[in-house]
Amino acid sequence: MFSQTVEYALRAMIYLAQSSGKPQPTEEIAKVTKVPPAYLSKVLQSMSKGGLVISQRGLHGGFRLAKKPEEVNILDIISSVDPIERIQTCPLGLKSHGVHLCPLHRRVDNAMAEVEKTLSASTLAELLAEPTDSIPLYEAGTFKPS
Amino acid sequence: MFSQTVEYALRAMIYLAQSSGKPQPTEEIAKVTKVPPAYLSKVLQSMSKGGLVISQRGLHGGFRLAKKPEEVNILDIISSVDPIERIQTCPLGLKSHGVHLCPLHRRVDNAMAEVEKTLSASTLAELLAEPTDSIPLYEAGTFKPS
Repeated sequence: MFSQTVEYALRAMIYLAQSSGKPQPTEEIAKVTKVPPAYLSKVLQSMSKGGLVISQRGLHGGFRLAKKPEEVNILDIISSVDPIERIQTCPLGLKSHGVHLCPLHRRVDNAMAEVEKTLSASTLAELLAEPTDSIPLYEAGTFKPS
Repeated sequence: MFSQTVEYALRAMIYLAQSSGKPQPTEEIAKVTKVPPAYLSKVLQSMSKGGLVISQRGLHGGFRLAKKPEEVNILDIISSVDPIERIQTCPLGLKSHGVHLCPLHRRVDNAMAEVEKTLSASTLAELLAEPTDSIPLYEAGTFKPS
């Protein structure tokens, strides 16, 4: 239901949120998130255009979050790389339906609206603060806060 | 979020539910649902394997519903052609996470679980019984129950 691009974007944002604002080189992010570097580079570019990450050049350059982890939710991330396409008008192009969706398309669109609501309710900060043995991206016991 | 295949399958099932059990030729379904006939044919085959439709050969042959409209919900249809892939184990392959998803993947999987719940709550019969000016597949005033 969610694309590979979405999965990779979420991993990258989690990694940057765990990095306390220090710019991270693409190769390092790629290694930890297990994403092919060329693919990751494109995903980071989309998120840079979307205002979620900032690219910093130079010796200690790389990518860092553009906002605080408490200001970014899961839906923001998805929307920046592969937005959920809501049903705005009749997919069959029926004129009399137009924006007055039939019961079928109304149900399908409602399901997408609910997904958006659920995903916008969790910020990066919340995901990282949750008590768990499964720290995102890391095997148990190997995560060291920087 | 949902594929073209899902959209086409839903349209075909709605059409068959509106046809009061009479077998409908693929060409006729294709015309009303505005789906390319070859594509529709594959979708109908998947739904036949999934036990949602029955193919009837002969002069007045075609496809008809295998169950009553009140026994088929939207999720059944989606599952027969392009199932929602839930997150069963850690997408990064982290051994210590395994089935104990981290907070990120738990949230994403929960969103999918909610979609499944929402879509399984509406049967074909309910969609067709709902009072509306937008009868699925038809311009206002052109639907004639068979």
